[in-house]
Amino acid sequence: MEYRFSDKVLTLQPSAIRELFKLMVGDGIIALSGGNPAKEAFPVKEIAEIAKDILEREPVEALQYSISEGYTPLREQIAAYAKEKFGIRRREDAVLITSGAQQANDMAVKIFCNEGDAVACDEVCFIGSLSAFKSNNVEIVGVKTDDKGMIPEKLEQALENHPNIRVIYLIPNFQNPTGVTMPLERRHQIYEIARAHKVMIIEDDPYGQLRFRGEDVPSIKSFDTEGIVCYSGSFSKVVAPGLRAGYMIADKKIVDRGTLLKQFTDVHTNILAQMIVYEYYKRYDIEEHIRKISRFYGEKCHYMCELLKKTLPPEIKCIEPDGGMFVWCTDVTGKLDIDAFVKKLAEEYKVAVISGDVFMPAGGKSHSFRLNFTVPEKDEIKKALRRLGRRWHKRS
Amino acid sequence: MEYRFSDKVLTLQPSAIRELFKLMVGDGIIALSGGNPAKEAFPVKEIAEIAKDILEREPVEALQYSISEGYTPLREQIAAYAKEKFGIRRREDAVLITSGAQQANDMAVKIFCNEGDAVACDEVCFIGSLSAFKSNNVEIVGVKTDDKGMIPEKLEQALENHPNIRVIYLIPNFQNPTGVTMPLERRHQIYEIARAHKVMIIEDDPYGQLRFRGEDVPSIKSFDTEGIVCYSGSFSKVVAPGLRAGYMIADKKIVDRGTLLKQFTDVHTNILAQMIVYEYYKRYDIEEHIRKISRFYGEKCHYMCELLKKTLPPEIKCIEPDGGMFVWCTDVTGKLDIDAFVKKLAEEYKVAVISGDVFMPAGGKSHSFRLNFTVPEKDEIKKALRRLGRRWHKRS
Repeated sequence: MEYRFSDKVLTLQPSAIRELFKLMVGDGIIALSGGNPAKEAFPVKEIAEIAKDILEREPVEALQYSISEGYTPLREQIAAYAKEKFGIRRREDAVLITSGAQQANDMAVKIFCNEGDAVACDEVCFIGSLSAFKSNNVEIVGVKTDDKGMIPEKLEQALENHPNIRVIYLIPNFQNPTGVTMPLERRHQIYEIARAHKVMIIEDDPYGQLRFRGEDVPSIKSFDTEGIVCYSGSFSKVVAPGLRAGYMIADKKIVDRGTLLKQFTDVHTNILAQMIVYEYYKRYDIEEHIRKISRFYGEKCHYMCELLKKTLPPEIKCIEPDGGMFVWCTDVTGKLDIDAFVKKLAEEYKVAVISGDVFMPAGGKSHSFRLNFTVPEKDEIKKALRRLGRRWHKRS
Repeated sequence: MEYRFSDKVLTLQPSAIRELFKLMVGDGIIALSGGNPAKEAFPVKEIAEIAKDILEREPVEALQYSISEGYTPLREQIAAYAKEKFGIRRREDAVLITSGAQQANDMAVKIFCNEGDAVACDEVCFIGSLSAFKSNNVEIVGVKTDDKGMIPEKLEQALENHPNIRVIYLIPNFQNPTGVTMPLERRHQIYEIARAHKVMIIEDDPYGQLRFRGEDVPSIKSFDTEGIVCYSGSFSKVVAPGLRAGYMIADKKIVDRGTLLKQFTDVHTNILAQMIVYEYYKRYDIEEHIRKISRFYGEKCHYMCELLKKTLPPEIKCIEPDGGMFVWCTDVTGKLDIDAFVKKLAEEYKVAVISGDVFMPAGGKSHSFRLNFTVPEKDEIKKALRRLGRRWHKRS
């Protein structure tokens, strides 16, 4: 049967990353293409112990329907933690538990955008969020970036050219895919522009705590006096992604709308998962756990970047990030046919990386590729980069 | 700050049921207003044992990111179970795991409806689904029902008057709130109308297995040769709602679109929950478990209905259902001001029931109220109905 699908789903394309990911399993391929945390990063024993205790002591609470805004002790814990660690302390704000930060991002756009409205984002940006926005029939406007993230003057221009922009979407810490962190001054500039133009900001911060170099930069939300920032947080990188637990911190009026959407979308987030996260933060030293993961990732990242310097010629510029999960490599000569390069690399050299073009909402050529260092072992990284070097020198 | 919310969320109203539910806790109030399974219905020990085993043996699989379509063994298990138990065996169909049946319903509407399209549903219908549909800026068209469910002639009329109807939403087994089950002949009639008008059917079946009287009626999906039925199934009533695990069975082309939406909405359903459900069905006798729950609910339902006969005058007609979770009581004289009745009942007699008006998408007066029998204990039912009787006789 030929179905008449809605306009929204007709334009949806599978995430190239997740589709690639399926192909990349087995077959001797080394995957530098993923975006998963390392399996070593999961507090397996602790979660097992906590789950056992919860199902022994509070089984009905863990299995019954729960409230849409999320498990109250967890919401209070998040508010206190965000205040202490991220400086997020606006009185009129509230917390909504979501099924991962992706749902928080998607909801923020649903709350503020009608069909035909637009979201401004980095010209090279996390495709999962952009696809979520597109599935709401929202236009995506890419804004030029430099090594400090979105360029304020370019954002101003975009806002003038596209008066339908209602939301600016940012990943200020260790952006996916570029790894770039936006400095404080730039954050203030972007905030002021948003305020002046009366548009909202989604501050997506899945990687912020995975810092292995340098100093934390205050979140935009921390100086959001006006209540125009929706902060999206995630437990996927610091506890476990399979739990699908994340949150939105925003003005109570926004959270109230989000709670309604949540109620009608999936009633509430899996309550056992919410209780597990709450107990984990309560019982264990989360800071120590995060330090451990970050150190582990930092070592692998540095290892990868040192090898890249030896393997690739200087015209390939690789950004060594201060945290997060990705290294971004760009052919500064602009000659590289990235799709052909990536395809050959996978087929003939059995190494999977992601073409940067995938992350360009407006289409176009990035001349870049993204490497993940959290999942592969060091010896795999070594083997993969040796092959990458060979492929590079044979490029035609 | 005054926010400019999207049209979608501006019109959203909190579910009167869930809001009422919050008020109904404590304070000596007996709640016949809920829609939760009884806590005795949860296989607590079994789930605890399974969770322990999974987190011991396959912790990484249970905590890592997973595929959007859902845990493959669970999808295969559902397909096999649906074939054996529900006669659902269309070759071109596939299974998508969702965060509860509510998400499956919402997705089906997103897949087929543009803004301004319409969904036809029973004139008195489950408010959670209707609110989900409305949050997509979709029009709701209520169709008149009788004691066999939606009336075919009225559906035909609605389709003629509203050419924008793209989907018919049905709960054919133990409808919420009326408890009515649609007979097989009526199911065929509705299916043929949908086929002739090229509209889709969402067959929402959260209660179908909770039958305590009479014989199962084949699902509409079981004779869906054309692939126009999206069947929404749930583990909330037969395992546990807090897990937020449900599914859609539909043509593979529809499931493919649903998988994309899932990917961009919340990536995937909590994987530990999916593995728990899979193991529960594999290790234990689910049929015996369902028989046990149904018997337990059936006894309470019968107890409630017998008491209602004694307590209320004949002009209040109560439908004793063959399964599900609700008894529906209607003042056939049409004189009852239901909102005033329900309010007084709660405030002065400390008994919470739901006004039938809440379930009417087009607004209007139902002269009915809904009673839940799964949560309250028998002695609570007795006490509550005694108060209900007193309130009735004092009505003004």
